[in-house]
Amino acid sequence: MGESPHWLMERNRIRNAVIIGAGNVATHLVNALSHTIKIKQIYSRDIKHAMFAAKGIVNCTAINNLDKIDPTADIYIISVKDDAISNIVETACRRCPDKLWVHTSGSIPISVFDGYANRYGVLYPLQTFSRDVYVNISEVPFFIEGNDLNTEQEISTFAKLLSPLIYIADSDCRRRIHAAAVFACNLTNHLWSISNDILTEGGLSFDILAPLLQATLTKAINVSPYNAQTGPARRGDIGTMQKHLQILNHENQEIYKMLSKSIMTKYDIPLNDEQNKL
Amino acid sequence: MGESPHWLMERNRIRNAVIIGAGNVATHLVNALSHTIKIKQIYSRDIKHAMFAAKGIVNCTAINNLDKIDPTADIYIISVKDDAISNIVETACRRCPDKLWVHTSGSIPISVFDGYANRYGVLYPLQTFSRDVYVNISEVPFFIEGNDLNTEQEISTFAKLLSPLIYIADSDCRRRIHAAAVFACNLTNHLWSISNDILTEGGLSFDILAPLLQATLTKAINVSPYNAQTGPARRGDIGTMQKHLQILNHENQEIYKMLSKSIMTKYDIPLNDEQNKL
Repeated sequence: MGESPHWLMERNRIRNAVIIGAGNVATHLVNALSHTIKIKQIYSRDIKHAMFAAKGIVNCTAINNLDKIDPTADIYIISVKDDAISNIVETACRRCPDKLWVHTSGSIPISVFDGYANRYGVLYPLQTFSRDVYVNISEVPFFIEGNDLNTEQEISTFAKLLSPLIYIADSDCRRRIHAAAVFACNLTNHLWSISNDILTEGGLSFDILAPLLQATLTKAINVSPYNAQTGPARRGDIGTMQKHLQILNHENQEIYKMLSKSIMTKYDIPLNDEQNKL
Repeated sequence: MGESPHWLMERNRIRNAVIIGAGNVATHLVNALSHTIKIKQIYSRDIKHAMFAAKGIVNCTAINNLDKIDPTADIYIISVKDDAISNIVETACRRCPDKLWVHTSGSIPISVFDGYANRYGVLYPLQTFSRDVYVNISEVPFFIEGNDLNTEQEISTFAKLLSPLIYIADSDCRRRIHAAAVFACNLTNHLWSISNDILTEGGLSFDILAPLLQATLTKAINVSPYNAQTGPARRGDIGTMQKHLQILNHENQEIYKMLSKSIMTKYDIPLNDEQNKL
């Protein structure tokens, strides 16, 4: 009988987990993990939420008291709102500071664990999760960080249970990714919301834009947003821009003007006196 | 022998076309139409472009002189850059002012034809076309307008050769749709471009955002952008917003602040003194 092969040892290192949190990210992680490791406990302040997340997971206990956390798990995953992480760390980590602790936030630094645990890090999935929308976790990129190389390796091995798209990213890098995601998704969604309002005022439905939106996204990904840019600002077509401004309210005019000028600057389209009137 | 059924008369009304323009929209229309009607001619100022667009279309002639336009076609489709439409109309329509003339622009009013033709209108496809990207025309919404009810009906019947998604839209309505599309696609693409820049500065690729972008778009279409909004501004999470501002250049800071404040206004998230510092 020889030793277990290396890949098997790595795969088997983490056999069970405690999940702290029962929101969208936690629930999707539980569902993805429950096929490969044992989920011992799910914690939520509201026991009903914990019970809902634990439903159908074999031998998984719902708890709403951090003092009841089982200290014998291999990994503890804190997946709660950003501003609750610090309190959870202070209360929960002391139960078993030598176990592996991670949080799943894009914007909370790894240092939140300093002084409370000895092996810790971050496991940040770059995806938006909604309760009722299926997400194929194996297509989600995870950005990980550990407080030392060994821990980082452990988190990496664990993360590969979820997805092959694992990237090492320190807290600064994660902040950059998060800021980029805010531009690409949150602020973008707000422009869609404005677009929806403009259409609704004219008795039209946002649905008419769906094929165009999909084509625009596909093109941006395929040829890069820089090369995909089209529209009146890209052409320096001041006449069309002025016609659009006429039907916008003041707030949306300001947004239209600021972004159009930013496009013209990016593509070195000269702003003459007339264009400065925008 | 009875009369032809109504649907057959309607389907057969337009049997052939002349296409004025050989750009992306024109080329996609030619490819979609060439299976159902005869394309007699394709015009471009540059004969090579006309020949390229006419390649593979049976008995289709490439021309680069508006005086050579065949006056016996059933429909004339002007699909050129917005600022070239007016000149084309002035020169070309007099060859056969009683034939059906349409342009395909979202932002040029129908009145561009006033005094130059007697049956005219607009056939505006709400989609972005690139030369090498296949578009399923039958999924593209078309917004049409005619100078009288009969003409509008003719254009509608013709448009149904291309897509079942045919909407009547006057020039004001089309301007509204176009403005909405600029917000939803052009300005949005610019935010993706900024996002790309932020990632590139950190040695990261825009590709890591692809799954998140797709999920964000799908969610916005499924539940409406208003209901899909997430992110630090939506939560009023001033701490995270300030962290993001630290890594942005001045121009992108201004965009981030303006859009974040607009989100907070939309969702009635109070701006306290600290938040006004954004």
